[in-house]
Amino acid sequence: MKIIVDAFGGDNAPLEILKGAAAAKAEFGCDILLCGDEELIRACAKENAIDLAGMEILTAEGFIPMEADPRALLKKYKNSSLGVACRALAEGRGDALVSAGSTGALVVGATFLVKRLKGVRRPAIATIMPGDKGHFMLLDSGANTELTPEALNVFALMGSVFMEKVMGVENPRVGLLNIGVEPAKGTDLQKHAYPLLEANEHINFIGNAEARDVPACVADVVVADGFTGNIFLKTYEGVALTLFSNLKEMFYASTKTKVAALALKGGLKDLKQKFDADAVGGAPLLGVQKPVIKAHGSSKEEAFKNAVRQAITFAESGAIETIEANLPKKEGADE
Amino acid sequence: MKIIVDAFGGDNAPLEILKGAAAAKAEFGCDILLCGDEELIRACAKENAIDLAGMEILTAEGFIPMEADPRALLKKYKNSSLGVACRALAEGRGDALVSAGSTGALVVGATFLVKRLKGVRRPAIATIMPGDKGHFMLLDSGANTELTPEALNVFALMGSVFMEKVMGVENPRVGLLNIGVEPAKGTDLQKHAYPLLEANEHINFIGNAEARDVPACVADVVVADGFTGNIFLKTYEGVALTLFSNLKEMFYASTKTKVAALALKGGLKDLKQKFDADAVGGAPLLGVQKPVIKAHGSSKEEAFKNAVRQAITFAESGAIETIEANLPKKEGADE
Repeated sequence: MKIIVDAFGGDNAPLEILKGAAAAKAEFGCDILLCGDEELIRACAKENAIDLAGMEILTAEGFIPMEADPRALLKKYKNSSLGVACRALAEGRGDALVSAGSTGALVVGATFLVKRLKGVRRPAIATIMPGDKGHFMLLDSGANTELTPEALNVFALMGSVFMEKVMGVENPRVGLLNIGVEPAKGTDLQKHAYPLLEANEHINFIGNAEARDVPACVADVVVADGFTGNIFLKTYEGVALTLFSNLKEMFYASTKTKVAALALKGGLKDLKQKFDADAVGGAPLLGVQKPVIKAHGSSKEEAFKNAVRQAITFAESGAIETIEANLPKKEGADE
Repeated sequence: MKIIVDAFGGDNAPLEILKGAAAAKAEFGCDILLCGDEELIRACAKENAIDLAGMEILTAEGFIPMEADPRALLKKYKNSSLGVACRALAEGRGDALVSAGSTGALVVGATFLVKRLKGVRRPAIATIMPGDKGHFMLLDSGANTELTPEALNVFALMGSVFMEKVMGVENPRVGLLNIGVEPAKGTDLQKHAYPLLEANEHINFIGNAEARDVPACVADVVVADGFTGNIFLKTYEGVALTLFSNLKEMFYASTKTKVAALALKGGLKDLKQKFDADAVGGAPLLGVQKPVIKAHGSSKEEAFKNAVRQAITFAESGAIETIEANLPKKEGADE
């Protein structure tokens, strides 16, 4: 098992990426192919005493900046760390790719270099989110703002297979993110997607998932267009942030509350961890021919190591073959 | 000042509605016109010792059920408590209307009985939501799932006038709910609404409001189509519910944590109250010719009283005249 690592993607690259890759190699015994400027990688490793023994390096020129047009990955930045990494995956020089770099550029690289599965118009970013009783997958969480009902049906299948094969959820419950449970709720997109999902025999469709019930884990796979999914994701983060910051203020209000907070420290830490989206690792890009994992841009050693672990499980799972075999035939016409 | 009350709207009607109306009359000195079956109103008041002295009653037949098609308000349920109340407002028998009944039916009644302002295609439900540094208004929060950019521009004006004239916010900051701050973010709806909002000289447009920043009160008025607004609203509620229930579990974990929780009781109560959407009162329906307030379906005495107070402020504010005077001229073409 060889994991291709974009050594210059993310806010803390290359240091935390190298540390995470080394930790993953030590813990999971996988091979690592680092993509990025070899000289800088070696210098950073030496300075920080990171053992690169047994890791290969595929040299590259710089990286694609967050603010660059993602499509520049195919031209101006084709030799960047991410561009080289995507081509290495396409050429079979490794089994899976992990990057903490620009999401948009990774989607472009996955789509045009790694390439889509036949019958998939655009890959989905599938975010694994914390909920009350475990995790659920939200897809699309931001890659595609405007989608067809057929595309949502493809996303439902891909999310379901991933949750079953990679995350170990048996017969995952698939819900359509909506503003009510009745089949006629929502915009035309949801109204037309509902019967397609209902007729899809490869998924366990439970109907509409009301946004209010999703944090309580009413579904294992939550299907949405990228605009709605991203609104959900960011509202979730924003409310959690605001509430935790208010709790903190409450705890620091007086000596009495500070003492009380001390007794609750462990519980609070667990609670924050439970609702910390980073703990799982990364977000798979579904709909491409090989396993691609987007690690959080702010990933440090531990988060990046977790993303590598997820890439290994993804590559070993056979999820992509199952998705390919069960894709709705009609989506091809949508090309 | 006379407030028209739908005495049979809401989960706790008529008892809590009558109590709330009586409390409002006592506290604010307003006149009340109760709409609903007179015999049942008098029986309920007598049984619960509610003083109806000085309140008028306009009798009606039953009420429109939550599960009924909202449009049935115009035919089958035209003599229901809500139907009678809407006509009473249209005929000028009171200054404003408050109902805790079916939102959909209230929108229908407001649109076709009270009637829209010239240049407004559909009224918006404007929910006043709790945030980190006070309240903000979200509109539309669910009445209209598919909207034009021009309609969003009308909503922006209406929300801005309400927040200034009724809620006392000076020069309210208007934001467009979106998945990023750049003007080109979002679906076609947001992309086309952005320049209209930017050119609207009657509002203080601050650009896109990212869903993640809205709970922290980045804007006073948050504009969205009803689908996106409702997803935001329900995600907000769902995350808050889940976090508060997890906190409760944490507090009950052991004797040690129970003791600590005791010391934090006051602060926690304040925090729950701060993020309680019901505290403000009701949601105005904006875009109709007279003030209409939707009280929460689960309203009890206090919440309903607050909704009546809001109706009084709304009626006294002159907000509707200001909205009418400043409506974008172009929206008429959208009719």
